[in-house]
Amino acid sequence: MKTLRVPEATVSRLSIYSRFLERLDKNGITTVSSGEIADGVGVSPAQVRKDLAYFGDFGTRGVGYNVKDLLKYTLKILGLDQEWPLAIVGAGNLGFALCTNRSLSIRGFRIAGVFDNNSTRVGKRIGNLEIKPLAQFPEIVKKENIRIGVIAVHTSLAQEVADIMVKSGMQAILNFSPATINVPDGIEIRNVDLSIKLELITFNLGLRTAQNL
Amino acid sequence: MKTLRVPEATVSRLSIYSRFLERLDKNGITTVSSGEIADGVGVSPAQVRKDLAYFGDFGTRGVGYNVKDLLKYTLKILGLDQEWPLAIVGAGNLGFALCTNRSLSIRGFRIAGVFDNNSTRVGKRIGNLEIKPLAQFPEIVKKENIRIGVIAVHTSLAQEVADIMVKSGMQAILNFSPATINVPDGIEIRNVDLSIKLELITFNLGLRTAQNL
Repeated sequence: MKTLRVPEATVSRLSIYSRFLERLDKNGITTVSSGEIADGVGVSPAQVRKDLAYFGDFGTRGVGYNVKDLLKYTLKILGLDQEWPLAIVGAGNLGFALCTNRSLSIRGFRIAGVFDNNSTRVGKRIGNLEIKPLAQFPEIVKKENIRIGVIAVHTSLAQEVADIMVKSGMQAILNFSPATINVPDGIEIRNVDLSIKLELITFNLGLRTAQNL
Repeated sequence: MKTLRVPEATVSRLSIYSRFLERLDKNGITTVSSGEIADGVGVSPAQVRKDLAYFGDFGTRGVGYNVKDLLKYTLKILGLDQEWPLAIVGAGNLGFALCTNRSLSIRGFRIAGVFDNNSTRVGKRIGNLEIKPLAQFPEIVKKENIRIGVIAVHTSLAQEVADIMVKSGMQAILNFSPATINVPDGIEIRNVDLSIKLELITFNLGLRTAQNL
């Protein structure tokens, strides 16, 4: 597989293609062209072909792609042919929302542990999960073989939580706080900023106002 | 301003640059080079210069950019020199988390209305906001001059809520559900998929495993 140095934008589009393929598959559609994928997700057909070409030779000229095969392959490329248990630190509203989020469970992510230091939260349940004290983080992530930690605490606690995650062997951290987190080389840190998408909107609405459209 | 046909990736990077400039400004730093911005946010200096060039001629060769001026200008480009009140539909955990989210308030977004149809929620407060019945959505968004709606309801209700938003004059919708929403031309729809960033992580961790690093 030619998988090295794939642009991140390509990987993110692959996530979107695979969601579209899932929908087609559910609707009983068996073949699809790059043009149909492009239409379905709002990019150009050339972009679809270019993105897929990073990973090998797919489809048959004039026939298109087999939906089930391409879906299976995109999921495999994304690493989603295996289970990725997650550990969430922070059982406030955001932590709760993440534990019950359909976007995550649809894609096969399983919350395997949720932690908090607030004594009013520890011991309570979110669905099948019991909120555990943060002190049990190292032990539980080891037992559950968790490699990805999710930060859903207040900004002021985010770095401290990240340090605990790194010490406990997390290989990647998804950070929902606006804090800038420092981690050692080799640990992947990703920030989810809930306002970035809003700023694409305000950019466009601002333009529209300026042009009086 | 040469603002037409700016790639979305550029706009999103502009959001990130402006956050970095805010940090510099807070720390009393008055000038910055494209190389320093690039280092600070993890892109190439050429990318920073190319992105900024879409919007005009900034900085002085050999001196760099004035932090306060560039910050002010990036915020203006992003439309953040004005207030954008938001209306959230769905006052479950996610709606709650959004109402109290620091990422939004830091960037000047103000939740001006929160709505739900669940009688156990309506009338309760989230901070200073009272949860209103969905039936009051059209009246309140008009009064508060809200143009952006945020969907934080269950997947099965998302399209119905979007229809109400469109009828009530929303110009843009931020959708946190995994549902595929259809809106008329001219209405901007943005989906926040909480698992897209996770799939960048699993792609990389999957690669690492495959290469045995």
